[in-house]
Order: sequence, then structure tokens, then C-alpha cells
Amino acid sequence: MDLNNKFRKMIKKIQAYEYVFNLLGWDSSTEAPRESHARRAEIMGVLSKELFKLQTEKEYQDVVNELYSKLDTLDNLMQREIKKAKKELDKIINVPEEEYVEYTKLIQMSQLVWEDAKKNNDYDSFKDNLKQIIDFNKKFALYYNPNNDPYDTLLDSFEEGMTTKEYDAFFKQLKEELVPFVKKVLKYSMNEYDYYIIDYYDPKKQEEFCEYLVDVMKFNRDRGLMKKSVHPFTWNTSPQDVRFTTRYLERYVFSSIFATIHELGHATYEQQISTDFDDTLLHGGTSMGIHESQSRFYENIIGRSLEFWEANLDKFKEIFPEQSKWITPKDMYRAVNKVEASLIRIEADELTYSLHIMLRYEIERKLMSGEITVDDLPTIWNDLMEEYLGIRPKNNSEGVLQDVHWSGGMFGYFPTYALGSAYAAQFYYAMKKDLDIPKIVRNNELDKINKWLKEKIHQFGSSKSPKELLLEVTKEEFNPKYYIQYLKEKYTELYL
Amino acid sequence: MDLNNKFRKMIKKIQAYEYVFNLLGWDSSTEAPRESHARRAEIMGVLSKELFKLQTEKEYQDVVNELYSKLDTLDNLMQREIKKAKKELDKIINVPEEEYVEYTKLIQMSQLVWEDAKKNNDYDSFKDNLKQIIDFNKKFALYYNPNNDPYDTLLDSFEEGMTTKEYDAFFKQLKEELVPFVKKVLKYSMNEYDYYIIDYYDPKKQEEFCEYLVDVMKFNRDRGLMKKSVHPFTWNTSPQDVRFTTRYLERYVFSSIFATIHELGHATYEQQISTDFDDTLLHGGTSMGIHESQSRFYENIIGRSLEFWEANLDKFKEIFPEQSKWITPKDMYRAVNKVEASLIRIEADELTYSLHIMLRYEIERKLMSGEITVDDLPTIWNDLMEEYLGIRPKNNSEGVLQDVHWSGGMFGYFPTYALGSAYAAQFYYAMKKDLDIPKIVRNNELDKINKWLKEKIHQFGSSKSPKELLLEVTKEEFNPKYYIQYLKEKYTELYL
Repeated sequence: MDLNNKFRKMIKKIQAYEYVFNLLGWDSSTEAPRESHARRAEIMGVLSKELFKLQTEKEYQDVVNELYSKLDTLDNLMQREIKKAKKELDKIINVPEEEYVEYTKLIQMSQLVWEDAKKNNDYDSFKDNLKQIIDFNKKFALYYNPNNDPYDTLLDSFEEGMTTKEYDAFFKQLKEELVPFVKKVLKYSMNEYDYYIIDYYDPKKQEEFCEYLVDVMKFNRDRGLMKKSVHPFTWNTSPQDVRFTTRYLERYVFSSIFATIHELGHATYEQQISTDFDDTLLHGGTSMGIHESQSRFYENIIGRSLEFWEANLDKFKEIFPEQSKWITPKDMYRAVNKVEASLIRIEADELTYSLHIMLRYEIERKLMSGEITVDDLPTIWNDLMEEYLGIRPKNNSEGVLQDVHWSGGMFGYFPTYALGSAYAAQFYYAMKKDLDIPKIVRNNELDKINKWLKEKIHQFGSSKSPKELLLEVTKEEFNPKYYIQYLKEKYTELYL
Repeated sequence: MDLNNKFRKMIKKIQAYEYVFNLLGWDSSTEAPRESHARRAEIMGVLSKELFKLQTEKEYQDVVNELYSKLDTLDNLMQREIKKAKKELDKIINVPEEEYVEYTKLIQMSQLVWEDAKKNNDYDSFKDNLKQIIDFNKKFALYYNPNNDPYDTLLDSFEEGMTTKEYDAFFKQLKEELVPFVKKVLKYSMNEYDYYIIDYYDPKKQEEFCEYLVDVMKFNRDRGLMKKSVHPFTWNTSPQDVRFTTRYLERYVFSSIFATIHELGHATYEQQISTDFDDTLLHGGTSMGIHESQSRFYENIIGRSLEFWEANLDKFKEIFPEQSKWITPKDMYRAVNKVEASLIRIEADELTYSLHIMLRYEIERKLMSGEITVDDLPTIWNDLMEEYLGIRPKNNSEGVLQDVHWSGGMFGYFPTYALGSAYAAQFYYAMKKDLDIPKIVRNNELDKINKWLKEKIHQFGSSKSPKELLLEVTKEEFNPKYYIQYLKEKYTELYL
């Protein structure tokens, strides 16, 4: 068998196991009964050993290394794939097995410790775990690449090619332009639209409206489905099987609506990737940031537009006649774009959201450089909240303990959220040159937008890097000005 | 590592793969989107190769054979397990790989051929496939055991220890006693209860009633759930994860009700097995017949009893006030036990059901012995239908082509359905000595019945054979007289 085929066969096998883990995860998050998890954990233990063996066995290493040694004889796609394989392989084999096992245990335990700490508002009980997680991450980053700044290595693992240098510039601009703008808007943003937002909405009816939205977005139901779970997420194993979840809160109908549209953004991306990449490492969306750009594009730029509610308020009123009798599209537009200084990231509105991320980025950066320690965290967190949003958490549960990410070892992940919103805006201004977006949205012809995104972004899966995509689609490199411009235009019109 | 541990570890690994195949199957049957199946088939191809390797590799054979060679040094449970392992192993390795592959392809193709044949009422287009399947089954049975009658070997693979000799005796008795009894009942069975049975019942409301039944049966929701699918079935990977499905037909509410109770019978069996058997070959119900005895016990003996409807008709009326205003428990009791000569097995009532099975058994028996060929099938089928039930199929789609089993290579499976009903009756008379069943059912205290079944049958999983269970629980060997007695008592009281 020639080397390429051998590699392909190995990847196919590895992906079969990943498929299984995906399915187990989907099932666990959506319906597996409570008491099934103990046995499931055992099964996963057996299978993850098999997978680890495949990903690290000598034969696989040899194939990857040999292909890597003659990279320039390979075609472009294969070059990119082998680089990815090599990068992943080095990550796994450079970490001593004992340390990896120790870290895995630490992460598992830390989840529980964090949950308790958050529940009991007891940061101190979590601090030591956090410190150990940070130390491991620094150490691992140096294993991956001894010549690189550890935080840069971590940032790159969530968003290919991104560094502190670029993120610093991005957040600097946000801080200078957005913080004062937000303060101005907060003064004028009004509360008068509240009464029907917090009304009771029957979850069954919410589901009906969300199923309607699935069709508005022209999601292909032969290749996916919507279900519910505690935390909304999108799942896929191939473009032919893309599923996502939403959740229904009785007293906050926007939660299900915008979770649905958000996840539909992720799901549409995955559905529109070429199946040619199915058995390659180029399957799936190319990065966290690009993925988030798609979900936020649909959620905020489309779903929170006036035109979207001109198109879909009638259906909303049909399903919820009691609650929405007197509402106009304009009312809805203002309601879904209500700006508020809030303490909790996942409840933040579009405008203030990136300030929550900026805060986390600054803290991660200083933690990784050693400029601050875990002891300093609560105070720094609260000070920055006050500086950026003018509010101060009353306790650590609604402050530094609110997010799961750090207890899961995810350092370098947060900034991709803000990056996604900024990418989305940059894509938006490029799309505007080709399409009459307001008209398309008003006519519920989102297939036209899907098509543009498929041609320009989705179809390529991971075969292009985020930076390549930005440059090819928007004809320039990443530029935060579009994001700031978009927010200022929208929220000036709404509130100033 | 000692031999026992080595065996245990291998079994655990094999079961991890089987767990995965189970989950893939569950997902495919309940929600996986249409277009996901092609990729899924590829993934399953990769994984089934891995599983096959584990089940046949030299190391595993050596361990099983060595343990088998010193069987008398092992404890009872281990003895039973090793015998099972040896039997399965011999089955796999005695079949030449090419023939196995050829057969697998034949079966896959035959499914489609059968579907088309049934749709187009074209038995001839399916005949050759059927002949090949029969030939393979005979050949394989001889590979498994060259010294045994092939049909006996197949019968044993679905119901441990059962032979043509025993089935012949069973069906002979049914023929002599039940056929004339059924003819008498059919003359008196009335149609007056039809009007509300075929009324429209909102599927959402049916679901509500079935969820109620889940609680009536005291099913443990922390260890399982109910979903819907085209064909109801029960699925489990361990007693902590037992799921089942039902289906909702708008114009036939009994379909969802009795499918739910039937599957709850299977599911309760699985939930009540000791978890000690989790990583052994003694997990799960012990045989098709015993499993079917549990589902039919709950469906027919409990669910179609007067007391059951005395207990639960109020809830039914609460959910379906329009359709059931005037109905008494007695009306319901008669309606759910309506006897009819019908052509389709899966629509048959409790009384006539086993005659459908008897017909299939006789045909299988003669096909396997060579007494008849596939050419004779339609005529024999129709003649027997006329003899036993007094009706004749107008075409082969409602005759010999109606069931999927043969196209799937399942010869020897059908008789376990009738056996299950007969087992159920034999258990029932044993239970009556310990419990006041009518009172328990009338008071909706089915946990008392669950408990009896757990202690006597369920907890043991596959650690006891069907014959051992019957003898221990009922103090005698399998005896069809209980089944006949039960049917005669019930239907005499109802209709004669």
C-alpha cells in the first residue's frame, strides 16, 4: 500500500473512534438516563485506550513523519493535512504519559471542585486546582513548542495563527473605542420593553416557534435535527449528520430563540462543508473563531435585525397571541437588542459581550506571564468589571467563578468568542457588497445568504486557515474596525 | 495476569464494542437523520472489523479453549459463561470467512429484495434469495454442529435447549386444542365495541397516556426512557440504561398502549437483572422465549385484564374525554380482547396469535428438512391459514411475504414468540399461588409483581437457562397445558 493510502486508512480508523465518542457525547447530553453514566464511563475508558493507541503507535508516527519529511512533493490539501497531523502528533507524544494522566485526573476533579466552589461562593477552595491547571498548561505549551511563548502556543491551539500580539492590538482598539461608547449607550438604553419578555411562554409553544426558525434558516432536515439540552450546543460527525440543541426557559423566550439561531449558525456551517473532507483531517469548521463568527452572524446580525422581525413577528404572534398582541417589529427589534450592564457573560447582550471577553483575556494573559497569581484574581476581576461596565460583582460566584472553561483547562479559548463577533462583522461588510441583505432577510430568503457563505467559507471545511479565509473573502487581513463600525452604527441608530 | 482475569478483560473489551453498536442502532432507529446512514455504514464497517478481530484472534481462542479444558475447576457461573463463550467462538470460527462475507452480503441485499417483493406483491422476485438464505442456514448449522439436525441447531440458537421434538409436541397440543376453540370463539366474538377504537386519538395525548403507563408499571426513569420509532423495540446496554420505543397511530390508540406495555415488559426484565453480570456473558435476558414471556405477561395477562382497566380507565377518560365518555371498564376489557381471524401476524389478537406462529413453524420445519421447497411456499401458507383461521390471503404480500424475519436469515426465531406466551401462562399460574394478582392490578401496585419476577426470574440474567428457570420457578418442566388453560378460561368467560 502506498504511503498516502496507508495514512488515509489510519485516519479513517481514528475518525471511526472519534465518531463513537461524538455519539456517546451527544447521547449523554440529550437523553441518556442518570444512572447510565457510570457504566458509560467504563466503556469510554476501554475505547479511549484504543484510540490513544491508534493516535500514538509507532506505525502511525512513522507514516506521518515520513510524509512530513517530503511535504513539498504533496499536493496542497495533503500538505495542510500532514502539517495538522504532525502538529497533533507532536502535541500528544511530547507530553510524558504520567503527566498527561495526572493532568486528566486533575481536570476531572477540578470540574467538581469548581461546581462546589461556585455553588458555595468559595473561590479559595478552587484556587489551588486553578493554580495547578495553569502550571500544567504552561508546561504542556512548552512541550508542544519550547521556542514559543506558552500563551501564544495555547492561543494558536484554539485559533490557528493568532498570537498575543494580534489579540493585544484587537482588544486595545475595543477598549479605546467600545468602552466609552457602551457607557453612553447604557445611559440611554431603556427598560420599557420588558413586560412581555419576562412573560410566561409555554415551552411546547417555544419549541414550535424554534422548529419554525429551523425552516426559516433553510436547515436541511434530512441531514440533521434539533433537540433540547441543558446547555445548547451543536454536534456533528459529517455534513450529513449535524444536530444541535436549544433550551426552553418558561420566563425568557429569547433564550430559546437566540440559542436556536446561534446553533443554527454553527450547524449550517457544518452542513455546508464539502463531504470530500469526510475522511480527512480537513473535515469540520476551520477554527473556534470562524465557527463563532458564523453562529454570531446569524444570531446577532441576522436574528437581531429589524428585517428579521418584520419577516417573522407574524408567526411569533400566531403562536403567542396573548403575550405579543400589541408588539410591532420595531418593538421586537428594540427588545432583542436591549443593552444592559450585567455581571454574567452568557447573559450579556451583543454590545457589552466583548467587554466580558476582554476582561478574561487580560487576566489570562497576566496569569500566563506570571504578572499576577490566582490569589489576585477576584480583586482584579471585580476591578475590571467596574472599569469596563461600571458594575461590581457582589460575590465570586457571579464574578471569577462564573465560567466552566478554566476548570476544564481551557486557556486561550475565551478570546475566540470576541474574535468570532469581529470576524462576523468583517464578513458582513464583504457580503453587503454582493447581496441586498435587508431585502433578503425581510423576504425570508436566507438560502441566498447560506449560499454565499457556502461558496466563500463553509465548503472549505478546515482546508483553509482562518487567516486565509479572511483574506480571500474580505480582501484584507483581520481588521477590528468593521466590528466597531457595525456596533456603533446599529446601537447609535437604536439608542442615541 | 491469571487466566480468569485475562478472559474478563477480553470480554470487557468485546462488550465495549457491542455497547457502541447498540448505541449506533438505537440512534439510527430513533432519530438519526436520513442522510447520515451512508457515513454511519462506513464507520460501522471499520468498527465491526475491530470487533471481529477481538472475537476471533488467536489469543482469545487460546484463553477460551484453555478455560474450557478445565471447566470442572471453575465455579458454576464461570462454567456457564465459558460454555457460552466456547459455543459462540465455535460458531464464528467454524464458518469459512468467504462464506460468511458472502452470506452477509446476501442478507443485506435480500432485505431490499424482500421490501420490493412485498410492496409489489411479487413473491417470485424474492424466491431465489430465500432459497439461498435457507441453504446457507442449513450449511452454517452443520458447521456449528455437524452431528445435529440443522433445524435443531438453529432452534437452540434462539432458545437454548429447545428442539423440534419439544416444539412438535407443543404445537401438536395447540393444534388439537386451540384450533377448534378459536373457531368457536370467532363465531361469538362481537363487533359492537369498534366505534371508539377506531376514533381519532391525538398522538400527543397518546404519548401522555403512555407516559402515565410507564409510571403505572413502576419503571425506573433514572435507568431508562421511552421514545418513539416506526417499530417498537427495547434496547439496553446494562440494567442502568434500558430504553424502549412505542409508536402512535392516530386511528388506533391500542397500538401505542399495548406496544408500550409490551416493551415495558422487556424493559422491566432488563432493568431488574443484577449488575453483577455487567461485564460477563451472563448479562441480559436469558433467551428470546423468556424475554417474550415477560413482555406478553405484562401486555396480555396484566394489560388486557379487567382489573387493569378498572385501575386505569379513569386516566384514559381524563385524557380522552370525547372518545371514551360512555365506556365502562368492562367495555374496555372486551374491546382490548376482541378476537378476529386476521391475516397479519403483528395485528393478531392474543387468542389467534399462536396459530400464526404454528403455521410458520410448520413451514420452517419442512423447508429445513427438504420436505418442501420455496416454490411450494405461497400455496402451503394460504392453505394453512384457511385450515387454522378460516381465511385465505388474497395475495402474497398479506401472506408469505408479510414478515421480515426470513429475509434477515432468522430461521428458528418465530417459534419463540408462541413459546413466550406459553411460558408466560405457566409463570402466571405459579405467581397466583403467591400473589393476589387481581387485587394487585386493581390497586395499581405492579411493583409487587415486578418484585416477584425480579426474585424468581429477572435478577439472574442469563446465568440460568430457560429450562432451569421454568423448573425452579414453576416446579415443573415446560408444559403447554397452562397456556391452553389460561386462554380457555379467559375467552370462555369473555365470549362463550
